[in-house]
Amino acid sequence: MAKNFSSREENYSQWYNDLVIKADLAENSAVRGCMVIKPYGYAIWEKMQQALDTMFKDTGHVNAYFPLFIPKSFFSKEASHVEGFAKECAVVTHYRLKNDPNGKGIIVDPDAKLEEELIVRPTSETIIWDTYRNWIQSYRDLPILVNQWANVVRWEMRTRLFLRTAEFLWQEGHTAHATSEEALAEARQMLDVYTNFAENWMAVPVLKGVKSPNERFAGAIETFCIEAMMQDGKALQAGTSHFLGQNFAKAFDVKFLSKENQLDYVWATSWGVSTRLMGALVMSHSDDNGLVLPPKLAPIQVVIIPIYRKAEQLGPISEKVDVLTKALKAKGISVKYDSRDSYTPGWKFNEYEFKGVPVRVAIGPRDIENGTAEVARRDNLTKEIVPIDSLADYIANLLDEIQVNLFERARSMRNSFTKKADTWEEFVAKLDEGGFIQAHWDGTSETEQKIKDMTKATIRLIPLEPEPEEGRCILTGNPSPHRVLFARAY
Amino acid sequence: MAKNFSSREENYSQWYNDLVIKADLAENSAVRGCMVIKPYGYAIWEKMQQALDTMFKDTGHVNAYFPLFIPKSFFSKEASHVEGFAKECAVVTHYRLKNDPNGKGIIVDPDAKLEEELIVRPTSETIIWDTYRNWIQSYRDLPILVNQWANVVRWEMRTRLFLRTAEFLWQEGHTAHATSEEALAEARQMLDVYTNFAENWMAVPVLKGVKSPNERFAGAIETFCIEAMMQDGKALQAGTSHFLGQNFAKAFDVKFLSKENQLDYVWATSWGVSTRLMGALVMSHSDDNGLVLPPKLAPIQVVIIPIYRKAEQLGPISEKVDVLTKALKAKGISVKYDSRDSYTPGWKFNEYEFKGVPVRVAIGPRDIENGTAEVARRDNLTKEIVPIDSLADYIANLLDEIQVNLFERARSMRNSFTKKADTWEEFVAKLDEGGFIQAHWDGTSETEQKIKDMTKATIRLIPLEPEPEEGRCILTGNPSPHRVLFARAY
Repeated sequence: MAKNFSSREENYSQWYNDLVIKADLAENSAVRGCMVIKPYGYAIWEKMQQALDTMFKDTGHVNAYFPLFIPKSFFSKEASHVEGFAKECAVVTHYRLKNDPNGKGIIVDPDAKLEEELIVRPTSETIIWDTYRNWIQSYRDLPILVNQWANVVRWEMRTRLFLRTAEFLWQEGHTAHATSEEALAEARQMLDVYTNFAENWMAVPVLKGVKSPNERFAGAIETFCIEAMMQDGKALQAGTSHFLGQNFAKAFDVKFLSKENQLDYVWATSWGVSTRLMGALVMSHSDDNGLVLPPKLAPIQVVIIPIYRKAEQLGPISEKVDVLTKALKAKGISVKYDSRDSYTPGWKFNEYEFKGVPVRVAIGPRDIENGTAEVARRDNLTKEIVPIDSLADYIANLLDEIQVNLFERARSMRNSFTKKADTWEEFVAKLDEGGFIQAHWDGTSETEQKIKDMTKATIRLIPLEPEPEEGRCILTGNPSPHRVLFARAY
Repeated sequence: MAKNFSSREENYSQWYNDLVIKADLAENSAVRGCMVIKPYGYAIWEKMQQALDTMFKDTGHVNAYFPLFIPKSFFSKEASHVEGFAKECAVVTHYRLKNDPNGKGIIVDPDAKLEEELIVRPTSETIIWDTYRNWIQSYRDLPILVNQWANVVRWEMRTRLFLRTAEFLWQEGHTAHATSEEALAEARQMLDVYTNFAENWMAVPVLKGVKSPNERFAGAIETFCIEAMMQDGKALQAGTSHFLGQNFAKAFDVKFLSKENQLDYVWATSWGVSTRLMGALVMSHSDDNGLVLPPKLAPIQVVIIPIYRKAEQLGPISEKVDVLTKALKAKGISVKYDSRDSYTPGWKFNEYEFKGVPVRVAIGPRDIENGTAEVARRDNLTKEIVPIDSLADYIANLLDEIQVNLFERARSMRNSFTKKADTWEEFVAKLDEGGFIQAHWDGTSETEQKIKDMTKATIRLIPLEPEPEEGRCILTGNPSPHRVLFARAY
């Protein structure tokens, strides 16, 4: 544990990096751009996975697994997809190493060159739709509601732990439908699933919308997204769900015989969230004392620390803790009792505060006399003396309260970071203050690109049901029927 | 569903392939040697993962994630490891594609050549021990008990679904310890965990032992293994646990300060099981009617099929089924009620038999009158009429009974396939009958290699506690202190 890390105000970016590394979430590896997800970080990701996987299954999806490698030619089949994904990627060209004949270690065997290069998947639409061609003949084979948990690789030039890494972990849903309506409804449903997860598990409020054509997924007709606001005023895309139309079905010749005995191309969606959410989680709630984790995703929800000087004082404390631990576990609450004598209580307080454990309980000899315990909340750093007999119920309620409080706090932050701008000057000035800027846009890709080039801000989303409001584009002055959401983003 | 597939006697190998594909477990993909694990197959793998993951955590392990790519130079650091793994592997040499200037699609960009090639991990000892160097300073940092669920790639020339694929899914445990004894105990503990899983979840009896030097993991001091016997008399290695000594610590310079203030290299283990277990599962229990799944790993444990001619007969059946389903689910039993009218009961019977669902319940109008149901077991294909009111308890017991029966049946099969041979002629003859051959061996690698060259049989294991018995090597006649286990193997 180390407290010598930057404050948010000093250097937000450095604070984030320090926190991720020093809180044992992840670290850089010997391989450029690839991270090691450490056990504490992975435990949070596992909780995310479990919650999402349950939601996917509750909405009728099943898991499957498709190959890591994709033949190079597959990327050429969907015209816009290749532009978006085939460029920066890891290319496998050989399948064997051999001893250097000159005795200089091992070298790539030039005789083991692949006939066709393989791309390490940056996303799996192509290989999956190549597979679906054999799975789908008639409407009876539809819908296909498949999800995959996998690693993917995108050769990013500038990487940051969790937020942008060459390899990352994610889930990608790939569904096939008989009608456009059904596919659209699926894409919308998964946006709702992501929203539910972000808000009720991560305690991160999100805005729902659709992407402008410039920001759309390569190969999609429509990209739905959820956008979150970080503490530094930058937006973060927390999940996307794509309506792919018949693009991939056409590219991979996937047709079905409808109920009406018509041959038609299949309709598709894809949707995904990744370990990037770990970055959003850290940046939404954590503070200058370290991590702050929402109870629903905390690997340890409650830590109990005994306070004692003499060895014989530990026995009675541990007895009480034993009863409390059982009561908490019976409620499905994860508890750690740290009775190590190699560290002081003060060191432990700092350690678990830094690691974002939502509730800390301290029990000393005087507590044993009084039948009490000290309960400290990580979210607002307050403490309370609580009768030990009612502690299990108290903590169960407190965890719920912390979960809600974190969400409310993040929502206030987000709301205070959401502003309107009606002129270019106002737009630029407010952008520099950070946050979402609601502004009018003339609806053209050219204007969006110009605004991006001038300010680094992009359209984060067009609201799903935009409030009609006649206005003038902040850049061109051309008419606009409603506002869209701009921000600088991760 | 399709019954037109080979019988085991006709062609065991074809029977296996047909079954895996037609039962929707997996199929070959467009990428040579890489499989698609289909939802039904993946659901079984998920059950395996859950059971193993719980066992790993119960023995103190945590999960983490390390990079997919390993710098080529890492493989040269552990001398024997490079021989075993770096040869047949996927090599990433470039990180970008570009449009062909001649307009022929996309090509690898020659300007985007990596300075050092990256190997897609065939196993992760090297990258993990390179990481552990920074995690370990003193004995206080030990032990490290980490597991990883991941995909790995080994460029196999001849592949078979699940049994040998270029990419496969697995878990790999990598632990670090302060003493040799502790590391050895860990390696042995994980062998016991694998044994427990194989026998009590997969219902596959296994023999425990150590590998001969020829069959040892590249870089290990000792490789512990469990070996199973398939219905065709061939052995299958179902899991390995390696005591790595200080080999990787020395290769990656991982030292720790002991309690006694001495600087020493760290002791290591690694252990893994893979989607290969899916192959073992299929080949252990299934028959000429299709899959047979042990209840503990069956995605659907009970299927209920209504038998009716007129639509109005379905209502009363469904009512009864509703009560039954709730009672079964309350016992943690997974149930599917297939009331689709687009398929006949006969078709459904075949379908679920083929898919290996352990228990089938059929309920028709006469059953409603009599308060009964027909219960069919997949393992021995017997049927029973059971009072519907006691059905939930009956089925719960039946599932346990089937689990035990499958194990016992597999054990009888294995035992009848285990024979002694004392002469070369006897050895060769019995080998051709299939199964494990207990025979004397002179303990040399040369003899083992000769036997392999002559018969394709390898030493599957040397028993952990071999029964002392003076004998003569079946090939050389040299003295041998105990028998070892030979077999032809997958």
